[in-house]
Amino acid sequence: MNIAEYMQGLGRNARAASRLVAAASSGAKNAALMAMAAAIRERREFLISANVKDLDAARTAGLDAAMIDRLKLTDKGIDTMAAGVEQVAALPDPVGEITDVRRRPSGIEVGKMRVPLGVIGIIYESRPNVTADAAALCLKSGNAAILRGGKEALHSNQAIAACVRAGLGAAGLPETAVQVVETTDREAVGALITMPEFVDVIVPRGGKGLIERISRDARVPVIKHLDGNCHVYVDDAADPGKVVPIVENAKTQRYGTCNTAETLLVARGVAGRFLPEIGRMLAGHGVEMRCCAESLTMLTDCGIDASLLKAAQASDWDEEYLAPILAVKVVAGIDEAIEHINAHSSGHTEAIVSENYTSAMRFLREVDSASVMINASTRFADGFEYGLGAEIGISTDKIHARGPVGLEGLTSQKWIVFGNGEVRR
Amino acid sequence: MNIAEYMQGLGRNARAASRLVAAASSGAKNAALMAMAAAIRERREFLISANVKDLDAARTAGLDAAMIDRLKLTDKGIDTMAAGVEQVAALPDPVGEITDVRRRPSGIEVGKMRVPLGVIGIIYESRPNVTADAAALCLKSGNAAILRGGKEALHSNQAIAACVRAGLGAAGLPETAVQVVETTDREAVGALITMPEFVDVIVPRGGKGLIERISRDARVPVIKHLDGNCHVYVDDAADPGKVVPIVENAKTQRYGTCNTAETLLVARGVAGRFLPEIGRMLAGHGVEMRCCAESLTMLTDCGIDASLLKAAQASDWDEEYLAPILAVKVVAGIDEAIEHINAHSSGHTEAIVSENYTSAMRFLREVDSASVMINASTRFADGFEYGLGAEIGISTDKIHARGPVGLEGLTSQKWIVFGNGEVRR
Repeated sequence: MNIAEYMQGLGRNARAASRLVAAASSGAKNAALMAMAAAIRERREFLISANVKDLDAARTAGLDAAMIDRLKLTDKGIDTMAAGVEQVAALPDPVGEITDVRRRPSGIEVGKMRVPLGVIGIIYESRPNVTADAAALCLKSGNAAILRGGKEALHSNQAIAACVRAGLGAAGLPETAVQVVETTDREAVGALITMPEFVDVIVPRGGKGLIERISRDARVPVIKHLDGNCHVYVDDAADPGKVVPIVENAKTQRYGTCNTAETLLVARGVAGRFLPEIGRMLAGHGVEMRCCAESLTMLTDCGIDASLLKAAQASDWDEEYLAPILAVKVVAGIDEAIEHINAHSSGHTEAIVSENYTSAMRFLREVDSASVMINASTRFADGFEYGLGAEIGISTDKIHARGPVGLEGLTSQKWIVFGNGEVRR
Repeated sequence: MNIAEYMQGLGRNARAASRLVAAASSGAKNAALMAMAAAIRERREFLISANVKDLDAARTAGLDAAMIDRLKLTDKGIDTMAAGVEQVAALPDPVGEITDVRRRPSGIEVGKMRVPLGVIGIIYESRPNVTADAAALCLKSGNAAILRGGKEALHSNQAIAACVRAGLGAAGLPETAVQVVETTDREAVGALITMPEFVDVIVPRGGKGLIERISRDARVPVIKHLDGNCHVYVDDAADPGKVVPIVENAKTQRYGTCNTAETLLVARGVAGRFLPEIGRMLAGHGVEMRCCAESLTMLTDCGIDASLLKAAQASDWDEEYLAPILAVKVVAGIDEAIEHINAHSSGHTEAIVSENYTSAMRFLREVDSASVMINASTRFADGFEYGLGAEIGISTDKIHARGPVGLEGLTSQKWIVFGNGEVRR
């Protein structure tokens, strides 16, 4: 197989299909999604047997238990996947929305129309359910998709792809609207990210290494999600009833997610009051604290297991632990908090706990991150929690889309002009 | 001078200044813009004497007359430049606008806030007025800017930069909010486009070669404008009174602009009726026609100077002539017109002339270009004509901003969450 030619072929098919799905009615797209979901449920045995092949190969290759767990398609997982596709069908269609129409002095009326991006390339790692999720989101937003999953999930992804094609076919849409790359050769990724004539945007979903590599080599725009070094800042005017619940939820509800807090900043004026209580709560969850000198002194002799208290290194302020570890720093107040966050954050999500209107609004305006919150847990930074219905990823970029990317993030707006024979003078 | 270090220094300054201008009030930004405009008017002699140095050098270097013309700062040009900055001051401030706030089932209220992109790098060629235009647009949209003009305009750009700094200083804003690169070393461009830690987006303004080179080498997003191969399609249901005026204006009002029509498509059903009249009008302007076989036959023996009629080559359908030349093709109807445009257009601007509602709306929806027009000249694709007040460029990209890019295109939206102590379940 000549990989470059194969990928060019997929690209050519996708470009042609993208014209048809861009012009498809909401009814046709929803019918295809409902048929996909039905096919996923009906072909349950087929999906599980394909998945067993991947699991056997994974065990033979000695993949670790966490990886195998992510790879596994259970009966419940199949239902969840089908329900996810049905949920996308139920979302409003963003395509074709006309807004901001205004008459200009020349007589023309100028407005905007929301349109698909065209062809979206998705590169992802082990979880096979991404195949169905991404297919559904791309189709609903009127885009064609080329999906490139991890090699360990090859059989599972191909089986899901067959269900996706069945759904497209049932609704009279081109089966090439969603194509799953059938080779595990890494050259396929290189080709996919360097075909601007066929692919309009790449969405990589995976570890930081994968995303950095793709961003470096891509010749098309990349909607990327790098790390989530999220902060909670406890302000001088924090409501005592909100401090511990928000810090606890932001740090301990799940350790491995990108919207989990990794650094706690506490205003000096209230550090003595809140830090011991926060420290004991964190210790109760077994969370290790990497402390600045001042917070380390305050937290020592609070009855906290000494093995959980460490002096922070400079690198701790930039770390995404994805683990029961939290960096802790005392700051002078709102100014130092904003400055520290804008210097060290990865621009994902930050929260302030404060009852002071001016501090809260300054934090909201001046913190330069994709999500900025007042008196709420950073864990809310999520497409479902925000009401997007679903998300293709969370962007840490600053252009196009910031934060959770839903259907709208897979579209853009073109200009439309309604004239009556006007010419420019 | 160590160029890499020098550019890192500019980057560091710009990043720091970007925090201050992002948080600056509309009043402070407008005061700076008005002071800039005043400084440009007051320092008229100084600007002209700096420009004379550039003009002398250009003549010595043997630059052509068109290039020298673009470089020249006249008394009137200085007034226009100052007035342009004042117009930007008068535009509404996009920064801080809060929209789409909705209460979610969890209790949090989620919305969006419009925010600056951060630091914008602008790379441009000879016209020195771009220095003032770009500075004004970046500042008003709350961004810091690093401007890198052409080496032939070095003295003029530095003199304008001094006026910009005077304006910033008068309003108490950091002078480093707009920095003009003081070296003409090409290594400076290479450094500017590869500092993602300091620069958030690059806007190149210049020829296709410059833009392709920058897009290829950049390590930050580029808002780029490649070519403008714009189409006018005369539909079966075209209003005879609109056909010739629109084609005439789209092709002949100005030959060198990116929104000038480069290809005319005519529906077969009306080609016999309209083509001779269009051909004679174009011939009257001395426009050469590169014709498909069918249109060539129709145009021959219409009294048109034979030297203006040529058979089109395949490459003519993809050409941006920027000259009195027009490619002409007869198509079966709306389907072939849309197909031809989506295959050959550069995605800039296309217009249909039609009184048929369904054809017009299909064209509007299915043509995948940044601007799509019904019964209006392609020449309207322009920031001023669209009511943006000004434009930093015209994007042929599909993500972030399409078409004319004004203040809003220099911003994005972050998510904001108003909570009351909510945590995620």
